[in-house]
Amino acid sequence: MTNISFTADLEPLFNPRSIAIIGASSDAAKPGGQPLMSLLKNKYQGLVFPVNPKYGQLFGVKCYPDLAAVPGDVDMAIIAVPAAHVLDALKQCTDKGVRVAVIFTSGFAEVGGRGAEMQAAMTGLARQSGMRICGPNCMGVFSARNALFANFFITDLPENVLLPDFLGFISQSGGLGSSIFEMIKDQGIGFTYFVSTGNEADLDFADYMAYMAADERTKVIGGYMEGVRDGARLARAAGLAREKGKPVLLLKTGRHAAAAKAAASHTGALAGSDRVFDAFFRQHNIIRADSVEHMMAVLTILAGGKLPPGNRLCILAGSGGTGVLMADICASHGLEMVPLAGETSTALSRLLPSFASAANPVDLTSQVITHPALLLESGRLVLADSNVDMLLICYWSEQKYDPLLDQLVAIARSTEKTVLVLVLGAEEDARRAAHYLYRHRVPAVLNSELAARALAAVARYTARQHRPAPATPPVLPAGAQEEVKKLLAGCKPGAALDEHRSKLVLRAYGIPVTAEEAAATPEQAVAAAARLGYPVALKILSPDITHKTEAGGVRLNLKEPGQVRRAFEEIVGAAGRYKPDARIDGVLVQEMLPEGVEMIAGTGRDAVFGPTVLFGLGGIFVEALQDIALRVAPLSPADAREMLDEIQGRRVLDGLRGKPPVDKGAVADVLLRLSRLALDFPQIAELDINPLLCHPGGIKAADALIVL
Amino acid sequence: MTNISFTADLEPLFNPRSIAIIGASSDAAKPGGQPLMSLLKNKYQGLVFPVNPKYGQLFGVKCYPDLAAVPGDVDMAIIAVPAAHVLDALKQCTDKGVRVAVIFTSGFAEVGGRGAEMQAAMTGLARQSGMRICGPNCMGVFSARNALFANFFITDLPENVLLPDFLGFISQSGGLGSSIFEMIKDQGIGFTYFVSTGNEADLDFADYMAYMAADERTKVIGGYMEGVRDGARLARAAGLAREKGKPVLLLKTGRHAAAAKAAASHTGALAGSDRVFDAFFRQHNIIRADSVEHMMAVLTILAGGKLPPGNRLCILAGSGGTGVLMADICASHGLEMVPLAGETSTALSRLLPSFASAANPVDLTSQVITHPALLLESGRLVLADSNVDMLLICYWSEQKYDPLLDQLVAIARSTEKTVLVLVLGAEEDARRAAHYLYRHRVPAVLNSELAARALAAVARYTARQHRPAPATPPVLPAGAQEEVKKLLAGCKPGAALDEHRSKLVLRAYGIPVTAEEAAATPEQAVAAAARLGYPVALKILSPDITHKTEAGGVRLNLKEPGQVRRAFEEIVGAAGRYKPDARIDGVLVQEMLPEGVEMIAGTGRDAVFGPTVLFGLGGIFVEALQDIALRVAPLSPADAREMLDEIQGRRVLDGLRGKPPVDKGAVADVLLRLSRLALDFPQIAELDINPLLCHPGGIKAADALIVL
Repeated sequence: MTNISFTADLEPLFNPRSIAIIGASSDAAKPGGQPLMSLLKNKYQGLVFPVNPKYGQLFGVKCYPDLAAVPGDVDMAIIAVPAAHVLDALKQCTDKGVRVAVIFTSGFAEVGGRGAEMQAAMTGLARQSGMRICGPNCMGVFSARNALFANFFITDLPENVLLPDFLGFISQSGGLGSSIFEMIKDQGIGFTYFVSTGNEADLDFADYMAYMAADERTKVIGGYMEGVRDGARLARAAGLAREKGKPVLLLKTGRHAAAAKAAASHTGALAGSDRVFDAFFRQHNIIRADSVEHMMAVLTILAGGKLPPGNRLCILAGSGGTGVLMADICASHGLEMVPLAGETSTALSRLLPSFASAANPVDLTSQVITHPALLLESGRLVLADSNVDMLLICYWSEQKYDPLLDQLVAIARSTEKTVLVLVLGAEEDARRAAHYLYRHRVPAVLNSELAARALAAVARYTARQHRPAPATPPVLPAGAQEEVKKLLAGCKPGAALDEHRSKLVLRAYGIPVTAEEAAATPEQAVAAAARLGYPVALKILSPDITHKTEAGGVRLNLKEPGQVRRAFEEIVGAAGRYKPDARIDGVLVQEMLPEGVEMIAGTGRDAVFGPTVLFGLGGIFVEALQDIALRVAPLSPADAREMLDEIQGRRVLDGLRGKPPVDKGAVADVLLRLSRLALDFPQIAELDINPLLCHPGGIKAADALIVL
Repeated sequence: MTNISFTADLEPLFNPRSIAIIGASSDAAKPGGQPLMSLLKNKYQGLVFPVNPKYGQLFGVKCYPDLAAVPGDVDMAIIAVPAAHVLDALKQCTDKGVRVAVIFTSGFAEVGGRGAEMQAAMTGLARQSGMRICGPNCMGVFSARNALFANFFITDLPENVLLPDFLGFISQSGGLGSSIFEMIKDQGIGFTYFVSTGNEADLDFADYMAYMAADERTKVIGGYMEGVRDGARLARAAGLAREKGKPVLLLKTGRHAAAAKAAASHTGALAGSDRVFDAFFRQHNIIRADSVEHMMAVLTILAGGKLPPGNRLCILAGSGGTGVLMADICASHGLEMVPLAGETSTALSRLLPSFASAANPVDLTSQVITHPALLLESGRLVLADSNVDMLLICYWSEQKYDPLLDQLVAIARSTEKTVLVLVLGAEEDARRAAHYLYRHRVPAVLNSELAARALAAVARYTARQHRPAPATPPVLPAGAQEEVKKLLAGCKPGAALDEHRSKLVLRAYGIPVTAEEAAATPEQAVAAAARLGYPVALKILSPDITHKTEAGGVRLNLKEPGQVRRAFEEIVGAAGRYKPDARIDGVLVQEMLPEGVEMIAGTGRDAVFGPTVLFGLGGIFVEALQDIALRVAPLSPADAREMLDEIQGRRVLDGLRGKPPVDKGAVADVLLRLSRLALDFPQIAELDINPLLCHPGGIKAADALIVL
């Protein structure tokens, strides 16, 4: 749902009626001078008030000794004074009723110590006064619609903008952000807004994203992200963008740092925070770019405005080898090299020389040079084929082939399907051709692998946008929450629930568990076995022993009362020797399950995103390959099903070596119930079902552990 | 070893003293006209004889009515007549004593039918006469040293060659090959030779590669490959290149079926198994490029002439975000972001502003703009650090930063380590900066992921070049070959050896197998069990039953004579019911092995490369993940060890869940013995050890199957 209050107070940041520049400078190269000059030069629509006691006027505009001296209301204050004076300046701002401050100055949280303290004070001031803060340590804000240059990296309104009001961009790095701005601008893509977030003492990535999501002008949201503190806010902003049908394209770093950190601890390795980000991006259909170039390649397709309805690709190339190579690269990146319909091939055969390939990839041969119309005609033919969702045209750029460029434009204009031109050639030729195509709004990239990856990314994006609407989530048994509340009552953070109690929690939420009973004496165990039916398993029941097998606390496949009695004594004895001070509550008598497919399922808690749900194959898979699928709770039913298809070992679920296939619906249902449980009980730090056993009779949690 | 005869007869192709052009044309745009014009214009050193009854002279040179009329010897004939006349022309060539024919004409194997027949005749003629053939359906040959333009795609000697006599290139696609030629030329990299191989009726990829390997001028060999027919010849050529220390850089298609099919229709090439090609490339340290751009990025580093001694990377960037992003990308591609030595960090801290990062990635901050010397000084500092093998400098290109370019040149010149510049920026700026760097022979790329992948590729290359020299291969037991010859005697192709006989073959080659005896009666089985020691396993012994478990033909863990006797009867009975006409030789009585790590090892036979060796983890890994390592026989000891580190599940080998680590030396020894066996007995089509069991007591083949 749209939450207006989440975004409303950013209007003064992106569309202020008046701006004061505290620390204004006569030097246009300095942070205090550049925005002043740019605002004036580019005819910013509002009022500009330079503030600096040193000057009477700056760039022909009256300069004020302090903020109080500025006449009338000030919506925005740009702060470009030394760090030691920033808090004073902010107090002047709140006194004046300034609505948003943009702080360029650095030397705060990023340097630690006194800087971090000052930043904390800044945050407090914002919370208390309601004045919002962008930065500190940021490069500021740009808005095209009103020539707002509250920044010191964009000095002029971009020229030759082919696609005005298209991209809103948020960057957690000023330097890299300004580089990205230049590269995108170079392709004629127009910005609505560009924000350098700096240290995010107050406003953060999610705030800016939510504003751009709600903003009617912005069509696509892009960003460079290093991290966020509050996953829920990011989820809210992403949800808003999705609701508005706006693609979000983010370049996020931290893959490697996360991996290194993850190696430190076993559970960390399973749910490292970059993996959670990755999961989050999938869930919110945020396109994750791997590099600036990858981002640019996706953007060129988004800017074309035509997204592929599916994943089926046709390739047109002017040489057989190029077609073969691109087919290989595209298939490697998950695109489907689709067979053309019979009538398309027949028509192509009539059109093309006999030695050309009329199959996909279509080889136009060098005849296309002497007969340029071949290109347009074949392009139209394959685009008319209902097997084809998108077309990649490999174009060799050279002056003599320039006439073909207009054919490319004509092909792209003739269809609602995605057409991407891969421009090959010597660098100067390729650049010239690509810019011609950009100018005519034909998506074009200069790199073959990026062409494939960008097409794959947008195809995945549209597929996810059209995922079936979430089905009804599973219904909890009556009294589930009260039951779990009781089971968790009195447990302290860090405590572990024993297997039996963990399973009672699961059962309360409708997750099938093994039939079992706790037994405090050998006689109780034998009686329980009789009720459960032989054979049974016995497991030690102790809140202090989590590694039951290691403790000698497990006996399987017991077939008669004598074995049960003996096993009871042995287990309790072994456990006592293993951990002399362990509280031992007896044993768990459990039905023996037939052999089946072992999986694991569980929940965790991420510092940024909160509860997560994970799924994987049991046994050595997870340990050796870290082959798990992860999602942030709440899961949609589509998320749950997707997790099953995401693991590398997914073929095991379809039944290998004569084993029956796993009931995927039942597994997905377990994952959805876990998601609900993790959200309902934030005190659960970690929950592991290992194994979750699937056999022909159904699915059951055979062992479980909950840690608070 | 260098095999001179393998390469000697290509001299007339790359350095002919005289050339006849059969089907010479007055139209310089046609295949019969273009080489004539180019040879004349570029002052080819030898004699040129146009042949065409239609003309008295062409481009001012006397034209001959037929080849017989040409005075004196003709080393090379270029053939540009219609397909129907090519065989006649070739006969004229052999009559004249022509040493090599370059056939441009298409319409042969690639169209099938009569075309394929004519090509076969062509091949026969070459074999019979000793005249070599390049093509048909090729675009010909270029050689820079003598201005040899026996092709119709390169019309002039490249200008602005910065690095003459560097690259020899072989392309199995004419069109793509000529595109690649243009792109490489554009960077100022000079060619020694360029060959478009066409259909390879006679001379093939390996021939050209061997020539270039032996050729003193060529420093690096590049190529575009769709497939080869004879792996052994390619191995010989690759071996020669390796012996000469020449990097080989190949772009090979065929990873995906769609591409393989397209390639087959393109040149009629047999794509072979791409996995085997991949293995072959690793073994021969051939750098496999994933795309033209990836190839170019590797080439720019090779052209710089400085290869990294190791995998440890330092990054210098002008913004913190760029450094973080590149560190992430580089680490994702396997490069090691190395910590700098203490003294390097200290020196950097003194040099850089306090808010800069003096750790790796080094953030020079925007101060580098006003103090360009910071770049040179920091570059020198990190290059002097013995922790650092290579340096990646992220350079933002803009006119105002041009002065920094000379600093980059100075840094690259100051060191023997690899320096690569990643040029970012708007396309025109980036191109200008990159070309400045190319001109000064500083490796530069325009794409961040390619920068990382190219550095990773050359680091892997040097690491492999310095792999320890092959240790002594395992020594076979005396009489091994005779023993196996006896065991295989009388077996027909397609026949399977039973488990026992398969293991006798393994044992003959020194591969440890389970202790076991064949038994034809229950009494023999009991006696065998007594000799082996209890517990034992019994398995059905029948040449007609390969799936023993399915046939009810396996009983494990038999503890005393009664169990053995009973198991014998049950197994033989079950097998008879399973397959009534199966020949049953009795049972195999086998020692029970303790639990351990299950692996698989085996050999196969590839249509292109011959015997292969594979290794993987047992159980569901191979089936669900196809997680296997593959090599072409013969394996070096280094290859064998590498296979163990290559599988995804390699952590299992190091001991997981309390299991002891696998004896990797023993596994490698088995793989080497398998390699030897597969080479010695080409009649073995397939050999599977499944499982190869490793337990604390050692390693043993627990089951095996040989198919001829």
